[in-house]
Amino acid sequence: MIQFSSRMNLLKGSAIRELLALANKPEVLSFAGGMPAPELFPVEKVKAATDAVMDEMGQVALQYSSTDGFLHFREQIAARMGAKNNIKTDASHILVTSGSQQGLDYSARVFVNPGDVIILESPSYLGALNAFKACEPTFVTIPTDENGMIMEELEKVLATTENVKMIYVIPDFQNPSGRTWPLDRRQKFMEIVNKYEIPVVEDNPYGELRYEGDDMPALKSMDTKGLVVFLGTFSKILAPGYRLGWVCADGEILQKYNFMAQAAALQASTEAQLVVSKFIDMYDLDEHVAAIKDCYRKRRDVMVQTMEKEFPPEAKFTHPNGGLFTWVELPDYIDTKVMAQECLKRNVAYVPGDGFFPDEGHNNCIRLNYSCMSEEKIIKGMTILGEVIKENIKK
Amino acid sequence: MIQFSSRMNLLKGSAIRELLALANKPEVLSFAGGMPAPELFPVEKVKAATDAVMDEMGQVALQYSSTDGFLHFREQIAARMGAKNNIKTDASHILVTSGSQQGLDYSARVFVNPGDVIILESPSYLGALNAFKACEPTFVTIPTDENGMIMEELEKVLATTENVKMIYVIPDFQNPSGRTWPLDRRQKFMEIVNKYEIPVVEDNPYGELRYEGDDMPALKSMDTKGLVVFLGTFSKILAPGYRLGWVCADGEILQKYNFMAQAAALQASTEAQLVVSKFIDMYDLDEHVAAIKDCYRKRRDVMVQTMEKEFPPEAKFTHPNGGLFTWVELPDYIDTKVMAQECLKRNVAYVPGDGFFPDEGHNNCIRLNYSCMSEEKIIKGMTILGEVIKENIKK
Repeated sequence: MIQFSSRMNLLKGSAIRELLALANKPEVLSFAGGMPAPELFPVEKVKAATDAVMDEMGQVALQYSSTDGFLHFREQIAARMGAKNNIKTDASHILVTSGSQQGLDYSARVFVNPGDVIILESPSYLGALNAFKACEPTFVTIPTDENGMIMEELEKVLATTENVKMIYVIPDFQNPSGRTWPLDRRQKFMEIVNKYEIPVVEDNPYGELRYEGDDMPALKSMDTKGLVVFLGTFSKILAPGYRLGWVCADGEILQKYNFMAQAAALQASTEAQLVVSKFIDMYDLDEHVAAIKDCYRKRRDVMVQTMEKEFPPEAKFTHPNGGLFTWVELPDYIDTKVMAQECLKRNVAYVPGDGFFPDEGHNNCIRLNYSCMSEEKIIKGMTILGEVIKENIKK
Repeated sequence: MIQFSSRMNLLKGSAIRELLALANKPEVLSFAGGMPAPELFPVEKVKAATDAVMDEMGQVALQYSSTDGFLHFREQIAARMGAKNNIKTDASHILVTSGSQQGLDYSARVFVNPGDVIILESPSYLGALNAFKACEPTFVTIPTDENGMIMEELEKVLATTENVKMIYVIPDFQNPSGRTWPLDRRQKFMEIVNKYEIPVVEDNPYGELRYEGDDMPALKSMDTKGLVVFLGTFSKILAPGYRLGWVCADGEILQKYNFMAQAAALQASTEAQLVVSKFIDMYDLDEHVAAIKDCYRKRRDVMVQTMEKEFPPEAKFTHPNGGLFTWVELPDYIDTKVMAQECLKRNVAYVPGDGFFPDEGHNNCIRLNYSCMSEEKIIKGMTILGEVIKENIKK
């Protein structure tokens, strides 16, 4: 009889992916995924960049390459982190990964033995929970408010918890809540982390997608002790189809990630790295990001306005200043998994919130994505969702 | 102080990759890597296939896609396995991976807890050893002869060893030895495996690169109990730069690999899958493989002939019927790691054999690759290597 490893008891199909399969029908208004708007992909420019790569260095693009990644591409990434995240770094501190999901997987594998503690925000990113589960950790969650992680609670946990090996946070436009940590929280966080010297994984897929207000410095930019591992990605600012992300970390930590990458994957796609690198050389990625932001800002506005109009007062939701998601909290007695089925019957899909918590309960939340539906569909979808929520409110 | 997981104690830089960095200088004749000949890459055709994908379905190519892989691509893979490996399967039994290194990583993670036994050929593929080490297994090796794994030894081990969770084999043109199992060994192997019902990972990156003799049926084609996991790749028959491989397995096993892939990577590159799929639709991949084989066959002939002429009689080596490698055994008193430095001084590089064994010793072997150096360079390199070996032979 075939036996599987104990980690496989923890890994099940992702709730989002199963729901996405159902939500994939053309007639469904889906707010379930986290996908970029495909109509904004710069297909013609990508084609021209690919042609240039094939003409100039086709044999290199199709061959094996180094584990850490193509040097010029890592230089471009380092420069972008300087410009966008205030992080002074260079190519020698970057490892290119096959999407930042791979960076999440490597993170747990580098730091965590079975039973060790990973600290997370509550809620946190479902895909990260799933990646970390493969290392059979103990999750400890820190409560959040409208400004993200509550630092007093973090300090209490660190003062009383053994075997904390990693803290995972998404300080900018968090998935799922859409919340962003203000500067004072970031400073307080680094103070606490420096005291306890615990490695931090700062996941930043959405930081460049800010629709108003000032950019916040990345935690990595305040990191004086080399404790912060920064995960970045091209999925939201260019295209997820290439699966290109990166890890930025210091000395010994980055070396361990490189060893992990050698063992698990050898390297990220040479072709994808050269094409995205060439795209950045040939075109203005900032201009492209500006176009994405214009579109998503409007969609967010339409979504939040429609929710304000159509949702009952019992439904609380976040007003994100950036990113792809808003987060809805309904009265405790509503089970959003059950309600998701009612919505699907009316061709509206969302992700129930419980998957974003490692612990039981939390059945009254919803994550809504506004990046990949038109304004018209957002209005229609939020109106239907508002009706369904109202039907579920007890009089 | 930062603590790393216990698996990181086992993961070091790959000896091959470190040596490749040294061997990368243009003046070095390198037989160290396992790279395809870049001058054979069909760059113009790949460019045309990419252009067609961008024109016809650019938005799809740049977007997220399903974990298991693009359906038409999986159908093409299944059809190819039928034609080349005698494996009757279909798209529902395929998971597309980012290179077959990822398939190796997933294999150990699906089946192996720390301390569990993985059975391997002695020697076995260095990259597989490295991938498996991340799961902290116990390795048990089975001796091989010129026809691969010795089945009586396998049976002895299985009869007396507990907690065997996986058997890893490369029956076709093995890396590093170049050896291929004949039919009767394959039949005996499946008989034994069926008796003990242990999952088998059959790694087959080189099977299509046969230079003479008849194709052997894959173990997976003889698998009546759903025990064999077949790993395939486009790295050697088309291009490694895309990082595209696949897993073919039955029912529950494939489901576990899919769960592992969701957690660790979400999916392989959508763009790479669509481009390679389009290439297969637009062109004749068999014709391309035939051209590769013509080139490698000649290079193998030149290498083996030069070795026969220039190596002393104390050096024993394999005469592979396919694949990319030949394997040299020298007298026990020669340390090929030390000799590698002497060779590098004379601008010749190879991989010392000890890295292909999980146990200590085995310091007298060499792996030689003939796929990515010209015939002229092979003659020159093997002549120099022969001289160095002769200098190391005790009179």
